[in-house]
Amino acid sequence: MISVLRLGHRPLRDRRITTHVALVARAFGADRMLITEDDKNVFESVKDVVDRWGGDFGIEYVKDWKGYIKTWAGTTVHLTMYGLPVDENISEIRDAGNDILVVVGAEKVPGDVFRYADYNISVGNQPHSEVSALAIFLDRFFKGKELKKEFGGKMEIIPSKNSKMVRHLNEKRRF
Amino acid sequence: MISVLRLGHRPLRDRRITTHVALVARAFGADRMLITEDDKNVFESVKDVVDRWGGDFGIEYVKDWKGYIKTWAGTTVHLTMYGLPVDENISEIRDAGNDILVVVGAEKVPGDVFRYADYNISVGNQPHSEVSALAIFLDRFFKGKELKKEFGGKMEIIPSKNSKMVRHLNEKRRF
Repeated sequence: MISVLRLGHRPLRDRRITTHVALVARAFGADRMLITEDDKNVFESVKDVVDRWGGDFGIEYVKDWKGYIKTWAGTTVHLTMYGLPVDENISEIRDAGNDILVVVGAEKVPGDVFRYADYNISVGNQPHSEVSALAIFLDRFFKGKELKKEFGGKMEIIPSKNSKMVRHLNEKRRF
Repeated sequence: MISVLRLGHRPLRDRRITTHVALVARAFGADRMLITEDDKNVFESVKDVVDRWGGDFGIEYVKDWKGYIKTWAGTTVHLTMYGLPVDENISEIRDAGNDILVVVGAEKVPGDVFRYADYNISVGNQPHSEVSALAIFLDRFFKGKELKKEFGGKMEIIPSKNSKMVRHLNEKRRF
């Protein structure tokens, strides 16, 4: 199981980025998202996507994130531009077979996180985004197979060359 | 050369996401970003990163995005969850050897874009983020090698197991 813990979320300012982090977590094969602020807006956006597009991705509020990381029984991976290269460490992380807690910060992350984490992992060493860092980490972890994951939702896209095609699975047929 | 055109940017609401899109474009090997709003805040954030972290990534304002796409001489790739799978189309796009315009939208994208683009390409068919879609597209395009790109900036990270190590290349030595 893979959980994603989002640190440093500030309501209003980080709402849209945190929602994108959560949607990436879900779309790229993680099982749930934990956020450190009880931000209704984020919860509702994510639940709405799960309701329409399927899967059993969960989102939960965690008050004591330090305690959460410290007592995590599996592997904790902190994604940071200062860490060791993802491509040189992903096999070891995957092969350990533990439950994984992926920690992604907002702009400022308390220094403690670097010490608490089992792995500090970078996706390149240039500034970009926690959204892209998480996507690439999960993509490497699942070796690209996550893009074909079936979610069994009410809505399903039929990939198309030049239009929007959506199958509504619960739609009543009109005879 | 790869340019990234961001459509539908609304100042304030999309500022941080657009900045993340720009930073991903730069960090994952694109050459420049084009935005359809003259949003100073985004321009300054991106220029500040280029100034400190290096490279010659540019950011420009484009008023007439339709005209821009229509008259683009190379290949235009629109990233959309409704498109054809990136993994089945990336070789063809790469092997054509043309300059590439990657179009990424905000929440609503005018239907025209689907017709103007040479390729409508999806990174999975689940909702996630233009930030992650762009990262994965460029990662596939450059076969993961973009994560090792050297930028030659004033600041450079020394990847570390558990701390933040930065080399300041223009720093005066104190003897």
